[in-house]
Amino acid sequence: MSNIYAERIDLLRALMRKNGWCAVIISGSDPHSSEYVAPRWQQVKWISGFTGEAGDVVITEDHAGLWTDTRYFIQAAKQLPGTGIELHKTNVPDQVLIPEWLAKTQKKIHRIIAVDGLCQSVSAIEEIEEAFVSAGKARPCIVGIPDMLDELWTDRPAIPAQPVTLLSDVYTGSSRSERIAWLREEIQKRHCDAMLITALDEIAWLLNIRGSDIEYNPIVLSYLLITPSDTRLYIQKSGTPDEVTAATFAALEADDVRILPYDAVLEDLKAFEGELFVDKSSLNYCLHEALSDCGYIAGESPIILKKSIKNATEIEGMRKAHIVDGVAVVRFLHWLEDQIKAGKTVSEWDAAVQLGKFRSECPDYRGDSFETISAWGEGAALPHYVTPNDGSTKIGNHGLYLCDSGGQYLYGTTDITRTVAVGPCTDLEKEDYTLVLQGHIRLAMCIFPKGTAGCQIDVLAREPLWRRYRNFGHGTGHGVGFYLNVHEGPQNIRQGFKNQPLLPGMITSNEPGLYREGMYGIRHENLILCVDAGVSDFGRDWLKFETITLCYFDTAPIVRDLLYKDEIDWLNKYNESVYQTLAPHLCADDARWLRQKTLPI
Amino acid sequence: MSNIYAERIDLLRALMRKNGWCAVIISGSDPHSSEYVAPRWQQVKWISGFTGEAGDVVITEDHAGLWTDTRYFIQAAKQLPGTGIELHKTNVPDQVLIPEWLAKTQKKIHRIIAVDGLCQSVSAIEEIEEAFVSAGKARPCIVGIPDMLDELWTDRPAIPAQPVTLLSDVYTGSSRSERIAWLREEIQKRHCDAMLITALDEIAWLLNIRGSDIEYNPIVLSYLLITPSDTRLYIQKSGTPDEVTAATFAALEADDVRILPYDAVLEDLKAFEGELFVDKSSLNYCLHEALSDCGYIAGESPIILKKSIKNATEIEGMRKAHIVDGVAVVRFLHWLEDQIKAGKTVSEWDAAVQLGKFRSECPDYRGDSFETISAWGEGAALPHYVTPNDGSTKIGNHGLYLCDSGGQYLYGTTDITRTVAVGPCTDLEKEDYTLVLQGHIRLAMCIFPKGTAGCQIDVLAREPLWRRYRNFGHGTGHGVGFYLNVHEGPQNIRQGFKNQPLLPGMITSNEPGLYREGMYGIRHENLILCVDAGVSDFGRDWLKFETITLCYFDTAPIVRDLLYKDEIDWLNKYNESVYQTLAPHLCADDARWLRQKTLPI
Repeated sequence: MSNIYAERIDLLRALMRKNGWCAVIISGSDPHSSEYVAPRWQQVKWISGFTGEAGDVVITEDHAGLWTDTRYFIQAAKQLPGTGIELHKTNVPDQVLIPEWLAKTQKKIHRIIAVDGLCQSVSAIEEIEEAFVSAGKARPCIVGIPDMLDELWTDRPAIPAQPVTLLSDVYTGSSRSERIAWLREEIQKRHCDAMLITALDEIAWLLNIRGSDIEYNPIVLSYLLITPSDTRLYIQKSGTPDEVTAATFAALEADDVRILPYDAVLEDLKAFEGELFVDKSSLNYCLHEALSDCGYIAGESPIILKKSIKNATEIEGMRKAHIVDGVAVVRFLHWLEDQIKAGKTVSEWDAAVQLGKFRSECPDYRGDSFETISAWGEGAALPHYVTPNDGSTKIGNHGLYLCDSGGQYLYGTTDITRTVAVGPCTDLEKEDYTLVLQGHIRLAMCIFPKGTAGCQIDVLAREPLWRRYRNFGHGTGHGVGFYLNVHEGPQNIRQGFKNQPLLPGMITSNEPGLYREGMYGIRHENLILCVDAGVSDFGRDWLKFETITLCYFDTAPIVRDLLYKDEIDWLNKYNESVYQTLAPHLCADDARWLRQKTLPI
Repeated sequence: MSNIYAERIDLLRALMRKNGWCAVIISGSDPHSSEYVAPRWQQVKWISGFTGEAGDVVITEDHAGLWTDTRYFIQAAKQLPGTGIELHKTNVPDQVLIPEWLAKTQKKIHRIIAVDGLCQSVSAIEEIEEAFVSAGKARPCIVGIPDMLDELWTDRPAIPAQPVTLLSDVYTGSSRSERIAWLREEIQKRHCDAMLITALDEIAWLLNIRGSDIEYNPIVLSYLLITPSDTRLYIQKSGTPDEVTAATFAALEADDVRILPYDAVLEDLKAFEGELFVDKSSLNYCLHEALSDCGYIAGESPIILKKSIKNATEIEGMRKAHIVDGVAVVRFLHWLEDQIKAGKTVSEWDAAVQLGKFRSECPDYRGDSFETISAWGEGAALPHYVTPNDGSTKIGNHGLYLCDSGGQYLYGTTDITRTVAVGPCTDLEKEDYTLVLQGHIRLAMCIFPKGTAGCQIDVLAREPLWRRYRNFGHGTGHGVGFYLNVHEGPQNIRQGFKNQPLLPGMITSNEPGLYREGMYGIRHENLILCVDAGVSDFGRDWLKFETITLCYFDTAPIVRDLLYKDEIDWLNKYNESVYQTLAPHLCADDARWLRQKTLPI
């Protein structure tokens, strides 16, 4: 019995035989190493039917595999049967990643591995080569075919070209001229003349522009080349631009930014002379090859760190966004409680839609920052559950409901998860709920010396769970952009080693969780701003976190005895500040309700 | 005004001019990268007068510098004045290590940097070369002169050649034949024919031999070459060996270990043919050069990990050693309290001597595992205080007394720090005492998933201090050998990233502290054995620690309100188990006293 994905894999295998490729890698990314990708680059979904946000597929003559991480194991197990694709688990002990797997299984001496040269980063290619060398084998021949699947994927979507808007300095706190001037200095410090920027959030940040070429990520599909004499923006805008875009282009040109066609970057780079600085982690293989004659200096883009350290204006905006967003989430949770108490039928999808409605009442709302996870019961046990718009579970009148969502506002990005009791909870639910909250609070209360990296404090959020042999399989925190990508680097808070200290101005999520397959899931997520905490006799500057998310934690499922006094104090103080800050923005009914929800325990 | 060290530096500078060296590095190590070194290799002390356990000196035409870490800043500040040597701090933010410092300051194009080729590891040399390359400079010419200082240091001590003893399988739990057979398999796995072992504790472990060539470290100065056909021990034994050594040699030869002169290793290596496996981190530059023709495969010695995972016999021995050692420490603390209560004068040195006496009453005691730190008041503020044998401070009748000591026994190595109140304490002393203990207990109680590395849980021991802007500048834990070096790898518990999971059988110290310069120091140290803790629904095997050190924690200075209930429970249970385990081995008077000391709080 065949299915559509198995058929597509057969077509690809025919293409492989025709071209003499022994393996094909289909990357889950786009030409810019984006995390979320436009429909045009949803190649993994096209070939496999898998819709998780992270995953790569490898097809060989006799094997088809999907590599994805802990977050998507259950989802992959549901979506892969019938396709002939096997799941390869990543982020687990003893994982075998694609490079090692290829090095182990590809036995022919003249191996040709084909990749979509636009969607595979140079770093990924290098890792494959290194894996072969480590395994004592000759380097494989890796060919980068631009738009490799084009001849099979006949109805492939076009390259997106949505309107481009300007983001005023009122919101960003610094002009594009200032930012470009700063970057030119950074380029000089690296003894280079020019820099190619390929990561979309870096371009949007540098030029103070926003767009909607990728869902949830307000970026503009483009490349940017900064030379000593000019700034060249390569952008997909066929024909006459719309009014908004035309105005944006005019403003950019007034700041000496030249607007050029997206595709022109390749020829321009081939012709480039001088020392070029490039961040390889977001450089695709086709561009790398275009640069093979002139060569380039590789290093981490300085924009990544600079962008993560929010300036005073951005911080002010983020705070404002969290008031607006907190109002929407509180109104939503009040609405939900009323519906359930009234015995009305609300599906997970209905709930997500209603939350979107409350958010969209703010005129500065520019969409969600990612797809809302609205899950009751066993759906919530999938940390990255996708709420189906058709046939989603009805929210029951007992147990825990989890909602992970976020908004994009003109002056900031939010990302919040609340887990609330929609009725009576079991003792285990209550205990789990409390322990996850305890981890959340411990991290929120942490004070640490300057120089500390996220991986050095991650355990604080886990220890209350570890003590009871419980754990969660995802990171505790990711960086969050300013009206940009909801996931950004360089900092994070997770177990994996990363030598990036947490610095004042960085905004990171604090989101421990616990997931019991087939039963329920719990996650408590706030965004935390790293701030100065003064100095002491003990050697160094100290830092701490200030929680900027504003929505109460449900006190109903808390087992008070599990919490220590200082944790209870933190919780009561936090809930009180939520009430004090949000109440003036709520109608009397919502405010009264929130007062009850935020009473001290 | 000149001093002896300044004169020696002048002599060295004359030698430098004669040979055209622009810089000389004097390493604090020996030909085996040992941490503690025999008098012959105390070159840093000879040139600088600095007696800390870790430090390297660099002399150039116009600069003399000592690089050492946080532990020794105060000591260096006392010992360097008059020598003309400047202190370069390591283990601090913005540190400039020797390689970077040389790369920055050495401007001549033809730079010759001289090192003692025997006492500088290849890794250290490579780091210097890399630093020059990173700074955009040409690689310097580094010359490795064996015994570089010989012509200046006329009364230099000889190479040590103390008796060599056998350690029975009764204690080690596995024979040298088994260990050598295991190692031969490991060598084969690395596609090599032979292995050169240069680290002294690895040789002692592999051959089940012990010695006293280095104070506190019961090792035997030697090199070991394992080939497919034979095992060659290169050892310094001039003339006829003593009886004990002769018996040891006979036993080794019975197991096909050939005894060869220490110096013969160089020529043997030059003549060696085949694939040789070597751990570069303990390979000195002279041996590296001897191997330059035949080449070698570098990698971490498999003995390091194997040795750290104690077998059942070794664990049983370590437990026994901790009973014996606990008895000595309890008797000592009882004696000390009696002396002080009786108004007798006891100096820090007297106390250390008395502790040594109690330890030496055990027939299996083989010496201390490091120099006892016996410190009252401000001396204790130096984490690595050296108690002077002449003129040490009299222990007062108030405040805190700190004693960090350890014994070597036929069946194990101990390392324990106790801080006790010798009279009334200030509120700050009590608070600090309690917070350090809280960190100690949190780490001791930790349960963690298999795969966790020490740097991922180090913060547990610091968090109670960090919350009050306090910290300590050393690691929280180091591995401890089995009747071997008190410091061993590969695991540790500290802030620095090291990707070495803690594994069942590993024994590590748990020793948070707090130091107030000019006032007092606090450290609470036990050894903790990593053990299996079962499995759970949450994915993986779980591990925990079992504390094996047996001596009460003084409850007098505890501020009970600072501790959480589970921490108080841990403490009471621990003190009770100390009483139950040690009382049968104590005289009635000591047992009665210990009963009082271990009453629950």
